[in-house]
Amino acid sequence: MSYMLEEIRQQPDILAEIAVCNGKAARALANDIRKRDICHIVLVARGASDNAATLGRYLFELVNGIPSSLAAPSIITLYGARLRFDRTLVIGISQSGKATDVVEYLRGSREAGALTAAITNEPDSELAKVADHSLFCCAGVERSVAATKTYTSALGALYVLSSELDGGGEILEGLKKVPDFMRETLTCEDHIAALAQRYRYMEDCFVIARGLNHATAAETALKMAETGYIGAKPYSAADFMHGPIAVAHEGFPCFLIAPDGKAFDTLAQTADKLLDKKVELVVIARERGILSKATKGIRVPAAVQEIFSPLVYVLVGQLLTYHVALAKGYDPDRPRGLSKVTLTR
Amino acid sequence: MSYMLEEIRQQPDILAEIAVCNGKAARALANDIRKRDICHIVLVARGASDNAATLGRYLFELVNGIPSSLAAPSIITLYGARLRFDRTLVIGISQSGKATDVVEYLRGSREAGALTAAITNEPDSELAKVADHSLFCCAGVERSVAATKTYTSALGALYVLSSELDGGGEILEGLKKVPDFMRETLTCEDHIAALAQRYRYMEDCFVIARGLNHATAAETALKMAETGYIGAKPYSAADFMHGPIAVAHEGFPCFLIAPDGKAFDTLAQTADKLLDKKVELVVIARERGILSKATKGIRVPAAVQEIFSPLVYVLVGQLLTYHVALAKGYDPDRPRGLSKVTLTR
Repeated sequence: MSYMLEEIRQQPDILAEIAVCNGKAARALANDIRKRDICHIVLVARGASDNAATLGRYLFELVNGIPSSLAAPSIITLYGARLRFDRTLVIGISQSGKATDVVEYLRGSREAGALTAAITNEPDSELAKVADHSLFCCAGVERSVAATKTYTSALGALYVLSSELDGGGEILEGLKKVPDFMRETLTCEDHIAALAQRYRYMEDCFVIARGLNHATAAETALKMAETGYIGAKPYSAADFMHGPIAVAHEGFPCFLIAPDGKAFDTLAQTADKLLDKKVELVVIARERGILSKATKGIRVPAAVQEIFSPLVYVLVGQLLTYHVALAKGYDPDRPRGLSKVTLTR
Repeated sequence: MSYMLEEIRQQPDILAEIAVCNGKAARALANDIRKRDICHIVLVARGASDNAATLGRYLFELVNGIPSSLAAPSIITLYGARLRFDRTLVIGISQSGKATDVVEYLRGSREAGALTAAITNEPDSELAKVADHSLFCCAGVERSVAATKTYTSALGALYVLSSELDGGGEILEGLKKVPDFMRETLTCEDHIAALAQRYRYMEDCFVIARGLNHATAAETALKMAETGYIGAKPYSAADFMHGPIAVAHEGFPCFLIAPDGKAFDTLAQTADKLLDKKVELVVIARERGILSKATKGIRVPAAVQEIFSPLVYVLVGQLLTYHVALAKGYDPDRPRGLSKVTLTR
């Protein structure tokens, strides 16, 4: 079995341990955030970790009411700007803890007065050393170049932190059910593997979601690009309507990630607009109405709350990518021209 | 002549007036920002205005040292979150001033205690009414669905605000030279029109830049999607190396926007990596070394400082898009399935 598939399947067990693994560190960080009266959180990352950062931003704003944003690393690493970072928490995410620009941004922002934290799978890494606080993926060694378990476990660490900051145990309680929802979703693999055959010659596609699952669309598209060499473009359903929809034409593959929740209605409207254009509409959802309209559907059986759906729906994207890459004759563990650690400044 | 081309050509004259048009309002806003001790700026927009917001974020961080970010509108419009927005400035950008989600986000953030500002081409619009302060594009009526002059004039308004906040006149002085740099760049049109023939059958491409011109790449790609129905994907050169480069293959069209400045070296390295992959590399630059390596080059004669280059280099993207759309037999003024004002929540 390939590393990628093996690692996809490890995710429920890793998520089951994520709160235990990070509880104490997250509480200490949450205390510091309150003590320093932090009014702004910046997340800095690249690649899959940047997609985890996107979800973190939604969590901190929705659950904790703290304005949050993704860093533009070049502001510090290229231009050497000095930002006013008092009352700012900067969180660097890198599975290897080696991403040079992330490390440099964290170091620069700490010097400028920010409280800093790392999320990494490598406790001894440079990133963990540079940061005031560290949370860990606790995911074991990841052998596949395409990150899967370090993505969901980085998300898990963000949920744990958001929960500790919130003070209540609601998020932590909900998180406990996620491993079972993940297991339920992994049972769709046979269906997904059969469907993947149809995309043997797919060269481009759109992956569309909204709100919390914007991160899921971005991560699914990145996996497709990395392992299937598919020109996959992720969009928020709202941004998509402001221009890019013009590109969609008859037969063009559009993957729509539409879990139950507050973003669902926008996605149902987007589905109708895309069907008018006679695209190939692949819907990933639980709700049967939208699935029945799709060209092809992947029904996610898990009755997961919207807030946790990014942890569950991304598994469909991972499995789909894996099986499409296989169908195309590629080795998903060794994408051409990529290595496990990419160093950029 | 099409509206789009006419409006592209109006841009130097509009930029020449942007400081006069906004000086007083920008000073008043800058005073309020200081009085309220603003420590965080959020920009909210869709489509081309969102690309203007991206540049605004770089300006406020680089020139003013104020951590800035792009809003995820759904946080307020879908999920109804209440963010802690004391000491936060929220700037909504919409040429029509009608973008419902931008208006709603501004209203919600004002209720949550934020200082608010609008940048719009329509002084009587809903957006201007909702905001505490307003800056204007002063661009005249824009008839083409694809925004060109309202994009650069929104940028212009952001430069004026950043300059007033900075207190010094350095940015304003530099801005005065921009109209001439724009005129110089518009002289490349014949060369660009001839080159555009080569992309008559281009269906997909990458548009790559870094740092300040990340906005230029995003705006060029959006224009190509809207008017040429090209699946154009914008990337920061750094993000591109973390995965998407795997998709690039022999002959795949990659547009590289590489003005002189601190981001140049990263782009030169990206160029070399792409040439190894034998892509079709189209370089838009002033530096002759990188141009000589490219499959095709567009030399921008303007010796513009990096900080102002987004105002100048985007003209090449606009002209290229316009002429590729013509070569493909499309009417750039009336893209299929798009209207001038897109309403999303």
